[in-house]
This record gives sequence, structure tokens and C-alpha cells, in this order.
Amino acid sequence: MRVQTPYKRASRFFHPSDTVIDVKGKAIGGNKLAVIAGPCAVESEDQLLTIAKAVKQSGATFLRGGAYKPRTSPYSFQGLKEEGLKLLKLASDITGLPVVTEIMAPQQIDTAVQYVDIIQIGARNMQNFDLLKEVGKTDKPILLKRGLSATIEELLMAAEYIMSEGNEEVILCERGIRTFETYTRNTLDLSAVLALKKLSHLPVIVDPSHASGKWWMVEPLSKAAIAVGADGIAVEVHHEPASALSDGEQSIKPDRFANLMKSIKALASIENKEIQE
Amino acid sequence: MRVQTPYKRASRFFHPSDTVIDVKGKAIGGNKLAVIAGPCAVESEDQLLTIAKAVKQSGATFLRGGAYKPRTSPYSFQGLKEEGLKLLKLASDITGLPVVTEIMAPQQIDTAVQYVDIIQIGARNMQNFDLLKEVGKTDKPILLKRGLSATIEELLMAAEYIMSEGNEEVILCERGIRTFETYTRNTLDLSAVLALKKLSHLPVIVDPSHASGKWWMVEPLSKAAIAVGADGIAVEVHHEPASALSDGEQSIKPDRFANLMKSIKALASIENKEIQE
Amino acid sequence: MRVQTPYKRASRFFHPSDTVIDVKGKAIGGNKLAVIAGPCAVESEDQLLTIAKAVKQSGATFLRGGAYKPRTSPYSFQGLKEEGLKLLKLASDITGLPVVTEIMAPQQIDTAVQYVDIIQIGARNMQNFDLLKEVGKTDKPILLKRGLSATIEELLMAAEYIMSEGNEEVILCERGIRTFETYTRNTLDLSAVLALKKLSHLPVIVDPSHASGKWWMVEPLSKAAIAVGADGIAVEVHHEPASALSDGEQSIKPDRFANLMKSIKALASIENKEIQE
Amino acid sequence: MRVQTPYKRASRFFHPSDTVIDVKGKAIGGNKLAVIAGPCAVESEDQLLTIAKAVKQSGATFLRGGAYKPRTSPYSFQGLKEEGLKLLKLASDITGLPVVTEIMAPQQIDTAVQYVDIIQIGARNMQNFDLLKEVGKTDKPILLKRGLSATIEELLMAAEYIMSEGNEEVILCERGIRTFETYTRNTLDLSAVLALKKLSHLPVIVDPSHASGKWWMVEPLSKAAIAVGADGIAVEVHHEPASALSDGEQSIKPDRFANLMKSIKALASIENKEIQE
Repeated sequence: MRVQTPYKRASRFFHPSDTVIDVKGKAIGGNKLAVIAGPCAVESEDQLLTIAKAVKQSGATFLRGGAYKPRTSPYSFQGLKEEGLKLLKLASDITGLPVVTEIMAPQQIDTAVQYVDIIQIGARNMQNFDLLKEVGKTDKPILLKRGLSATIEELLMAAEYIMSEGNEEVILCERGIRTFETYTRNTLDLSAVLALKKLSHLPVIVDPSHASGKWWMVEPLSKAAIAVGADGIAVEVHHEPASALSDGEQSIKPDRFANLMKSIKALASIENKEIQE
Repeated sequence: MRVQTPYKRASRFFHPSDTVIDVKGKAIGGNKLAVIAGPCAVESEDQLLTIAKAVKQSGATFLRGGAYKPRTSPYSFQGLKEEGLKLLKLASDITGLPVVTEIMAPQQIDTAVQYVDIIQIGARNMQNFDLLKEVGKTDKPILLKRGLSATIEELLMAAEYIMSEGNEEVILCERGIRTFETYTRNTLDLSAVLALKKLSHLPVIVDPSHASGKWWMVEPLSKAAIAVGADGIAVEVHHEPASALSDGEQSIKPDRFANLMKSIKALASIENKEIQE
Repeated sequence: MRVQTPYKRASRFFHPSDTVIDVKGKAIGGNKLAVIAGPCAVESEDQLLTIAKAVKQSGATFLRGGAYKPRTSPYSFQGLKEEGLKLLKLASDITGLPVVTEIMAPQQIDTAVQYVDIIQIGARNMQNFDLLKEVGKTDKPILLKRGLSATIEELLMAAEYIMSEGNEEVILCERGIRTFETYTRNTLDLSAVLALKKLSHLPVIVDPSHASGKWWMVEPLSKAAIAVGADGIAVEVHHEPASALSDGEQSIKPDRFANLMKSIKALASIENKEIQE
Repeated sequence: MRVQTPYKRASRFFHPSDTVIDVKGKAIGGNKLAVIAGPCAVESEDQLLTIAKAVKQSGATFLRGGAYKPRTSPYSFQGLKEEGLKLLKLASDITGLPVVTEIMAPQQIDTAVQYVDIIQIGARNMQNFDLLKEVGKTDKPILLKRGLSATIEELLMAAEYIMSEGNEEVILCERGIRTFETYTRNTLDLSAVLALKKLSHLPVIVDPSHASGKWWMVEPLSKAAIAVGADGIAVEVHHEPASALSDGEQSIKPDRFANLMKSIKALASIENKEIQE
């Protein structure tokens, strides 16, 4: 039987069982739920360690933080760059949490791989094909975010760009699409989680912070993501959202994150899933 | 303090507590979850009763079924009209389930109110202002579906049209919006549930069948809807989807509906909500 | 040869030559350009006659004005209703311009046909199937506006609803679709003019006022509409936009309308089209 | 007076008069219309020279052709790369037409500037900020295409990224946005031309080929673009569209391009604009 499929390595047809990705002993996919938490941007050692310790204590499994920030304006804060990567490594060493960070250009790869455990490709770069190929040559898992107006097929083809270079450890991330509705920053498309998991064997997580742009939506959308079958969530946490250098509006405080974790754990228990500490 | 708000009766500002609507002793809103189930279209007595009994047995709280069908083509099946309403009444009498049906024009109101318990205004008629005003003069609860490209504010203003005529029993329904993504029929916008419940005191339910257009997405999206905080769901159930006169692709069979109910009940238990039988 | 086509009467396949609609001796379609101009809403005799005379003098071919206004809020000005229709008739008698007005409900038809020459179905009612069928039983030409999120096929199917009742005089109107872009009120889709004219024999006009929501875009978008091949335009003109009861932002003043007419005439001359006075 | 504007160098507020960009003695902006024509991808010497000579003969002002191709699939033709750039240089030398080509990564810049006259940043890379900054350090004019779901403000901010590095010669290009409508590949947003020219002093051109995805729409949409006030167009021309390695569906043949040029010239004459040969 001949099957026309535009993506091969990413396709469930050629790889029927779920891919489970191991990151320093922590699994993403299968019956394990990943909870990636941390600030939008790494701002200082004090800021990062405060948040890292707090999310660790509440049961997060990965730490996130931006060192290279893709900002709409060239005049906005662009991130601490390598200094930020070093702080992420420090926070990882102290908390034991593997770290995720975004890179925006091929020349950042060599530096980033020295400090972080998962490389994130942001929504704006989902079809930066040159960057996709370059991270496809690394041995780090790649967290690939869906573009603002990317179709499900385009997201899988972007994963295929990475995988075709040899790196098959790709985690897909639904983070909201751009629609006519302006009440939320983007429109979270949870059906996409179902579509992606049907078409592909790759793990799929959800980012309710960027999707909604509103901190008070993060917990209920996280619950919805787990209920629909996502393999995890990525949420922005900041201890002082009002003074955050970016995305303060959509960041939750550590105590709310603690509540979120309780909710997620309750859901995990009835879904036969586990948050691996 | 002066507050500018374009909607008044629908606004939570003027009505802080959740509205709970009673329909023949069954509550919608508050800590009660409504599960509205049934075929897209009423096709025959046999079809309707088979499905009605099945969904009743699994624990549905309301029966749905279309007698007047809004179809894109004038040459498609347009519904059984009053004959369909009579069958809904019969099914209601036999099962004890209150019934919901869509009407499309003011002149159908007088007939419909004799047979059904909740009147539905469909997505295409969300801004049929004349119809909104007319159903606002009835004493039946109105299930108001969000238009395909209606903003959250427009949906609340449509509710206001109904309420401004005196009928304050409006149930809002998120049923997917039209976006660039074509894998699903529409894009289910669960953030809208959160926005609507923040801005308004009215109950909000979710229709995963029309949102996704795919039967295999109905159960997980229903779970997500409950997890995000919706007051219920409306799902299409058909015992022979392959031969359904409309929407067979998105209808689930009674045994799958039974599974869905189990999932919803498990969720309800951890959310301190109840499906009222 | 068997052709699958969902629309029949509206299809160019079954009716290869362009439909030209005659309204009191003025043609719409073919090589004739229709210029429909007037206020969003009929506000008073003085207002309407001032504008009607001005647009007549500049060469408009039809007068528009709303008597029944579809407003997002029930608390906004809803139009002068039959009194507005009478004023439109008066303005038509004085200027000789045939008049176009929107109706929103079947019960308005009997009244409207006594006063106006073309009945408009607004964007929000494009899939108010009951209304479509009822205007399909009249002998007035119908100006059918594309819904905010209606596909080209859905617009043609809406025309089919009208035509299947016997009224084949339908004028299609592209008036902008709802997209993520918020700088303009809607996004004018001029490609739709080309698609509609390829798929259908019906005349197609463009409404740049509602599409853009900005008065300063009306003239250049009108020119673009004619350049792309539309059979005419519908524009909002008001002598005192700042105090208009609705849509002042997108209305042009009579002197700008005069300029617009000069631009359109220059274009018409190189396109072998004619504005029929 | 204090004005809040997120873009500075791109803003008309700080630079009221239109920017006119000179490329080898040919102007873009002001009263000069640029017509950029050529194949989607450079395929061979024979192919490129055939097309280049044809478009030159019809009056095109610039030659376009892709050497590095951004393709959704990693398995599709990716372009001839430097070999393609050399062929573009050859075609430029023979025809006298300055050439435009897309680059996708910073490391292609040094090579590209040796061969081409204008560097194009494609829609998918509109927010590849690293790439924007790098081309901002070159002395070549940059043709910056609007992203599929980029707002007008985001496009101007992307221009600002380039300009903030010192290169102020940016040409903006509207090439269709992604909407719910699927009849066309994208939805051409001609209102954006008006918005961009109001907000910015930079020249704005239109690409009707990528916008529509249909060769038979290219000529009328080109006319509409000129009528609305664009400073030029970029169109795909191929002598054998059926065997083109990419975008054959939207490419016009040389004889149709000759007709298009006649139409554009007729429009230019009534708009007091000139196509500079």
C-alpha cells in the first residue's frame, strides 16, 4: 500500500508508537507530563534563582527562561544573551531542573548547547529553515513552537526539517494562533493537540501564557491542555510580574503556580499520567 | 464610580453572582453541569427515540435535535419542521429530558414554544437582531451560539438584545470560530469561556462537535471544556453516523457517548461540580 | 460531461454570459458601472435631500440610505424605519436616482417594496436563510453583501437561496472580511471580485466604506475596485460626518465624492466602461 | 509636542517626504513605478535568460529570481544557491535590469551582495530579527515582504530593525495575508498599501502572484495595486509555467506579461506616474 505523506520522520504512519524523549532522566511524552516553568526573560541572578527555586518546590519538571529575546521592536530589551545562559546553567545546577531556552540564530547554537538542555525555536522562527536545519545537527532535544499562522501541516513540516538532519527529538508546542479575536493575545487551539498527536508520534505541549496573554487564564487553560491530552505545559512564572522586563501581563506568581500544580496533579491522577519529580 | 460598559443586563458588573437557569427542575450554571446530547437533525421517530433513550441512559441532562436546519445550500435537507418539534416533545415525554431546538425565524417561535424547553439561536443568526428581539419576548431560556466570526463583545451584545426585551435566561455557547486553520471545521476557542465568565454572569457551554467537525475529537474537547470551567457541553450523538442526514462526521455513537459521560463525571468530581440526573 | 456544482442558478457554468440588471433604465453589470452613494442612515429629510442632490450632481447612479439599521448594540440608533423609507422615496422622486436600502426581517419586505428599487441584505444576514427565501419571492433586485467570514462559495450559495425562489436579479457585494488585521475595520478582499466573476454571471460591486472603516481610504479603494473589474461601488457620503448618527468615520463629504467620481470616470474610460447618468 | 511612535526611522512623522530609492539609476518611490518580474526560482541559464529578455522587452524595470528558496518541505527543490546568483548577475549584465533575490540566512549575505542589487527578505523571515539586523549592515536596498500574519505595525517594526542598523533603503511589500478564505492562496490586503504610505515614508509595492496563487488574477490585481497607489509590483513570469520547479500555478507567461505592462502603463498615465525604462 502506498501512502502519500509530506512528512516522513515526523509521521505516525512510519512511527506508530509515541516518542518519549529523555532529558537528564526526565521523560517527555508517554504517560509523563512535563511542566516547564520560569520567567519570560532571564533578568538577573537573583530574579532567576528566586523563581527557579519556587517552581522546583511546587513540582515543576523543567526551568524555562529567555536569554535571547525576539522582540517586535529593536528598541525593546533584547535579553542578557550568554550571560543569561550562564545564569540558566547556574539555576539548573542548584535546582536540578533541566533548562529550556530559545535561540534565534545559528551562531547562537554553539554557545547555547554548552549551557542548556533543550533548545527552543520560537513561533516567529518556525519557518526559519536555515535555523531548523542547524538545530537538526545538534544532539539536544528541540522544543518547536507553532507559528502564529502556521497550519498543522506546516508545523509538522518544520519538525521534518529538523528531523531530516538527524535530530529526531522534537517536542511540538501549541501556543495560540492569530485570529480576529483580540480579547486574548492569540487564540489557543487545543484541537491542534489532538490533530498533532494523531498525525505524529512526537510529544505535544501547550503554552497557555503566550496563547492568552492573561495571567488569570493560565491555570484553567493549563487544566484544559492536560484534559485534552497534551504531554505537558510551558508557563511563565515571575515573582514580581508588575516589574518584569517582558510579558508581565501573562506571568503568574509562584503561589498561583503552586495552585496550578495541584490542579494539574489532580487531573493527572484521573488521566493515568504522572508528573515526574 | 462610573463604568462604561456596552452591555448592561449581560454584564457581571451589574450582576456579580452567577446566573443559574432552571429548566424543568434541572439547573444550568453554578455547580451544575449540563450535558446536552442528541442528533444534529431529527430524522424520524425511530431515530430520535433510539438516540434519546441512549443518551438518557448514559446520563445526559438535555436532549437536542434540529427541526429547522440552517443549511448552506437550499438544496440540502432542511429539517422536518413542526413534525420534528412534535417528535422532540414525544422523546421528551418518554425520557424526561427537557429538549433544545434551533429556530431560524420569528414566525417559528409560536409553534416552537409549544413543544420545546430551550430555544437555540444558531451561529449564523447570532446577529439576526429581529430574531433576537422576538425570542427575547418569550419565557423560554435561550441557548445563544457564538457566530463564526463574532467577537466576545458581539456575543454579549447579542445576549443583550435578547435580555433587553425582558428574557434574562440566556445560555451562551462557544462553538468554534473561523480561522485560517482548515484541519478542523472551526477552531474551538476555550479562552472565550473564561472571558465570557469574567465579563458576564450568564452560563457558558461548549459545543465540541461543531467546533471540530470530527467525532474523534469530541470526547477530549468535552473534557477540556469542563476542565476550563464551562457549565456544560452540547454534543451530537447518532446511532448510525454514516447514514445521518447531516453532520455524520462529527457525531459520536451512543457507546462513545457513554464513555464521554464517564470521563466528564470523573472531571466533575475533582471540580466540585455535578451532573444533575 | 458531468459537472459537480453546488450552485446552479448562480453558476456561470449554466449561464455563461454576464447578467445585466436593469433598474428603472439604469444597468448594473456588463460595461456599465454602478455608483451607489448616500448616507449610512437616513436621519432626516434635510440630511437625506442634501446628500442625495450632491451625489446626483457628481454623477452617482443610485442613492443608498439605511432605514432599518443592524446595530451591534440594542441601545444604538436603530433607524427611522418606514419614515426613512418614505424619505428615500421622496429623495428618489426629486433626484431621479433609484434607491437601495437594507431590510433585516421578512415582515419589512411588504413595506419596503413600496418605496425602494433595490433591496439590500446586509453582511450579518447573509445566511439568514428565511430572509433570503422571502426576498427571493419579490420582483426587486437584491444587493447581497458578503458575510464577515463568509467564503466565496457560501456567498454564492446565499445567492442561490434567493434565486431558487425565482428572483434571479442578485447583485453581489464584497465589503471586507474579518481578519487578524485591526488597522482597518475589515480587510477588503478584491481577489473575491475576480473569483466571483469567474464562478458566477452575477454583477459584483465593492463597498470600500465598510471594508476600510476610514474615509481617507474610500477613494483609492474605489479606484482599485474598478481597476480589478468590479461592476460598481457603494460608498457612504455624508455632508457632516462628524455628527452622523452612524459610520461617520468612514463617510466622505460631497466634495470628496465629486473627486472620487472624476477618478472613477478616468478609470472607466481606459477600461471601456461607462457610468450611466 | 510629544508623539509616541514605536517606529522612528520608518515613521512618516519624523520623515514627512516620500523616500525614493535609487538602484543603478532606476528609482523606486515618488512618481516612478517599479515593475519587478521574473521566475519564482532560477532553474537554468536558458530559463532565466529567456524570461529576463522577455520581461525586459515588455518594459520591466527589475528582474527577480530565487536562488535560495524557502520551501515548506525539506524534500522540495531548495534553489541553485550561489550558482543561481551567478546566473542572475549574468542576466542583469545582458539585459541591464537590476536584480532582486531573496536570502534566508546571514551567512548568505556576503555572497549575495556580490551578485545582486536588491536583497529580499521573505514573508516567513519578516521577524527573523537576526537576519534583519545583518542586512541592515549592508549597503543594498532591502525588499521586505510582509509576513503571512503580520500586522502593519509589525511590518514597520521589522523595517525599523533594518533601518536601526544604518540601512535606510527599505522597500515594503504587501503580498497577501493568511485568512479563512481558501479560494486564493492568501488574501491581498490593498488597504495595507494605504496604511503603510500614511504611516511611513518608505515605498510600498505589491506582489499579486503570491497573494492570489492564481496566474489569471495577476493582471487585474496588478492594476488594482497601481490604482490604489502602490509604488510598483512584483510578479512571477515563466515561459513554461506547467514545468516550473515552483509556483507554476501563479506564474504568467511572457505574452500575458506584455499585456499586463500595457494595462499598467495606461493606468500610470492617468495617475501621473511613470514606468522608468
